[in-house]
Amino acid sequence: MAKDKKVEQITDMEVDFAQWYTDVCKKAELIDYSSIKGMFIYRPYGYAIWENIQKMMDAEFKKTGAENVYMPMLIPESLLQKEKDHVEGFAPECAWVTMGGNEKLEERYCIRPTSETLFCEHFRNVIQSHRDLPKMYNQWCSVLRWEKTTRPFLRGREFLWQEGHTLHATEQEARYADFCENILAMPVTRGQKTEKEKFNGAEATYTIECMMHDRKALQAGTSHYFGDGFARAFDITFTSKDNQREYPHQTSWGVSTRLIGGIIMTHGDNNGLVLPPKIAPVQIVVIPVAQHKEGVLEAAQKLADRLSAAGYRVKMDTSDNSMGWKCAEYEMKGVPLRVEIGPKDMEQNQCCMVRRDNREKTFVSLNDLEAAAAEQLQAVHDGLYQRALKNLQEHTYVAHSLEEAKQIQEEKGGFVKTMWCGEEACELKMKEVAGMSSRCIPFAQEDLGDTCPICGKPAKKMIYWGVAY
Amino acid sequence: MAKDKKVEQITDMEVDFAQWYTDVCKKAELIDYSSIKGMFIYRPYGYAIWENIQKMMDAEFKKTGAENVYMPMLIPESLLQKEKDHVEGFAPECAWVTMGGNEKLEERYCIRPTSETLFCEHFRNVIQSHRDLPKMYNQWCSVLRWEKTTRPFLRGREFLWQEGHTLHATEQEARYADFCENILAMPVTRGQKTEKEKFNGAEATYTIECMMHDRKALQAGTSHYFGDGFARAFDITFTSKDNQREYPHQTSWGVSTRLIGGIIMTHGDNNGLVLPPKIAPVQIVVIPVAQHKEGVLEAAQKLADRLSAAGYRVKMDTSDNSMGWKCAEYEMKGVPLRVEIGPKDMEQNQCCMVRRDNREKTFVSLNDLEAAAAEQLQAVHDGLYQRALKNLQEHTYVAHSLEEAKQIQEEKGGFVKTMWCGEEACELKMKEVAGMSSRCIPFAQEDLGDTCPICGKPAKKMIYWGVAY
Repeated sequence: MAKDKKVEQITDMEVDFAQWYTDVCKKAELIDYSSIKGMFIYRPYGYAIWENIQKMMDAEFKKTGAENVYMPMLIPESLLQKEKDHVEGFAPECAWVTMGGNEKLEERYCIRPTSETLFCEHFRNVIQSHRDLPKMYNQWCSVLRWEKTTRPFLRGREFLWQEGHTLHATEQEARYADFCENILAMPVTRGQKTEKEKFNGAEATYTIECMMHDRKALQAGTSHYFGDGFARAFDITFTSKDNQREYPHQTSWGVSTRLIGGIIMTHGDNNGLVLPPKIAPVQIVVIPVAQHKEGVLEAAQKLADRLSAAGYRVKMDTSDNSMGWKCAEYEMKGVPLRVEIGPKDMEQNQCCMVRRDNREKTFVSLNDLEAAAAEQLQAVHDGLYQRALKNLQEHTYVAHSLEEAKQIQEEKGGFVKTMWCGEEACELKMKEVAGMSSRCIPFAQEDLGDTCPICGKPAKKMIYWGVAY
Repeated sequence: MAKDKKVEQITDMEVDFAQWYTDVCKKAELIDYSSIKGMFIYRPYGYAIWENIQKMMDAEFKKTGAENVYMPMLIPESLLQKEKDHVEGFAPECAWVTMGGNEKLEERYCIRPTSETLFCEHFRNVIQSHRDLPKMYNQWCSVLRWEKTTRPFLRGREFLWQEGHTLHATEQEARYADFCENILAMPVTRGQKTEKEKFNGAEATYTIECMMHDRKALQAGTSHYFGDGFARAFDITFTSKDNQREYPHQTSWGVSTRLIGGIIMTHGDNNGLVLPPKIAPVQIVVIPVAQHKEGVLEAAQKLADRLSAAGYRVKMDTSDNSMGWKCAEYEMKGVPLRVEIGPKDMEQNQCCMVRRDNREKTFVSLNDLEAAAAEQLQAVHDGLYQRALKNLQEHTYVAHSLEEAKQIQEEKGGFVKTMWCGEEACELKMKEVAGMSSRCIPFAQEDLGDTCPICGKPAKKMIYWGVAY
């Protein structure tokens, strides 16, 4: 098939990965730029992906008993300051409101960069007894962080996210991993962040790390265990069954529109976006072939109606653009399955299904339409997952010395796993010499030796290193 | 049934309507106050009402072809200034961001009070040809307006809403009216706002006005027709079929969490909240009677399971609180239907259903459980609507002189309809003398006479006056 002009405008990822990424975001009409740096416009096609992610995650959260709430978007500076580590981390990247109408405010307010402090203030008001626990709250909202370097989805001054806040320890990160693997077809590495990389104010931060096409790491979601640090700072207490005043233990967790950046860089190719079927705004595009011929439009419409009735998100394109244009357009937009039907197909009571991930064509009897669509979409999902898993496995290397780690990073990219003594000095050294930060201390530990390859002291943990977005 | 202490804390509405309202918002756990005036915390029970409203409205919007998008929350001052009337109206109530991190911004940004300017800037980028029209966009977000007087749901410095922005004239207000009547059981008066009361920058504003228990008016939703005013200010043009450059016509419309305030004040009573079944977070509460007796809990659970399976939002309360406490609690929370089952009911294969709106009890055979629940919930909806309609009709009066209007307002409240010359001077006079603002010029006009009762000049329209929230 002749390549279309529109698609040729996408830079090949091997030539310039960053430009390929920007091209896909723009040409597939996911985002537009606004007049403020780092504040992106989510266009209908991009926002619909987020809506699908939201819908599925929200249902999962509610199943576990989490309840949605909405907190104010502004935080008084004095409230942000209540937890010392937290404010030190976030204050430098807050946007500050100093005027309300024509009047200067007595105290400045920041637009939430995250809402731990607001949740804590509220928890203090509503929690008295052990009968009020656990509290499992979630909020869908946008947050602001005044970043210097920004990129669509990956790093914005404003981004959309959910933030869960609970008053008992849970294993939320496990659920994220399931979500990424089962819904987004993204394989993940699960583990704990180092002291250096953990969230401001947390006792421990857990993360799921994914590998992109260019072999860089993307932190796709995090959860934090706060112990009772925030509870003490905000004086949140409850009366236990033994009638004692106690401080509850606290967690928070969140994933954001960053996930969409991860989907693009995990599954996309040189023809554009490739979307996992479960979150694709359009799962199946129906294209009539030789649509001016008698009966073709009707047959295509019937087919589209049947697929819609079976619960799929379906679009039919009967515009007068050429067949080549249409194929290229929906490939670029990452629609997982294309279904074509023309006069010859009608004669044989069949249609042609083309998978987006590998362009494989299958002719399907119209009698089996719905079952075949289900099968093909599952095949696309599995194909995407397997390809991403292969990328992750093939580009995860073991290193036994700092030099070796550096060489792997320079020549191959990907994750480098080593043993580690646990000292921040060695993290700084790795960053300085090999340009990699610690990604996580995986839950699935391996024994690669006895000593830290950076300082030579006894090793405590196996750790993953990488260059991250 | 003995009244419960918790419920007795709600002030009677006849004693102090404003206090009754605040009591209901707090005791039914709809909202909490934050440390910033006018920025409310939407607690799980209050937020769930909004989620239900959202879900139903969103489905309606999508049916008409509207697409959801997300625009940045900040607007550069220079962008807000592009449409003169618009900025004059909104600038005095904007919250301004002047610092990003530790740096003073070169230009200050306001947090969106509404997003016309952002949509226009984006429309200019994405619209070239008549083939790009119509554009029907919608956004769910929160907006800020730095109000001096604030009340939960009714007037907040931050509130949640949807804002639709389209590039062709539509009759959205008609859809709102349907939504309020069919889903929220709130009868409305539809019409056009006067020049004085219209939206900043609009050519015409349409409104739906509801009457509250205290006979004050609540503007429940508005839509605006902009003509091509914004398009000219923002230089949005398209190439017509005749290959001419033209300015598109524009509308916007929105409803907000204010609706929840309207629901409370339309349907609530001295026992607390009364929720229309379609948006109630819990539609049916199941309460076992004498639950320590053998088999009661199992029977209640089976009943709750059947109702859940039939698609209702069901809660069962097996706590050790007294029967009286439970009845009062769920009355206060406005749960539309209470279902009780105890040993005597079990013997007779029945349960007892109690409607929230009029406390009517019905004994129902368990064989007919699902059908009876559907019938009772519909009866609650209809009952609420009829009661609200009666309130609206009984408290809408005709006046033929300014004095008469004043007297009606002082003695009875409600809507006063008169003829009107069309002059703003007469609106100001009515406000000064009778304390009422114009609510709308109803689409359903009536001929009440030839002259304006305020100035005596020839009348042009029939108009509604009222005291508004």
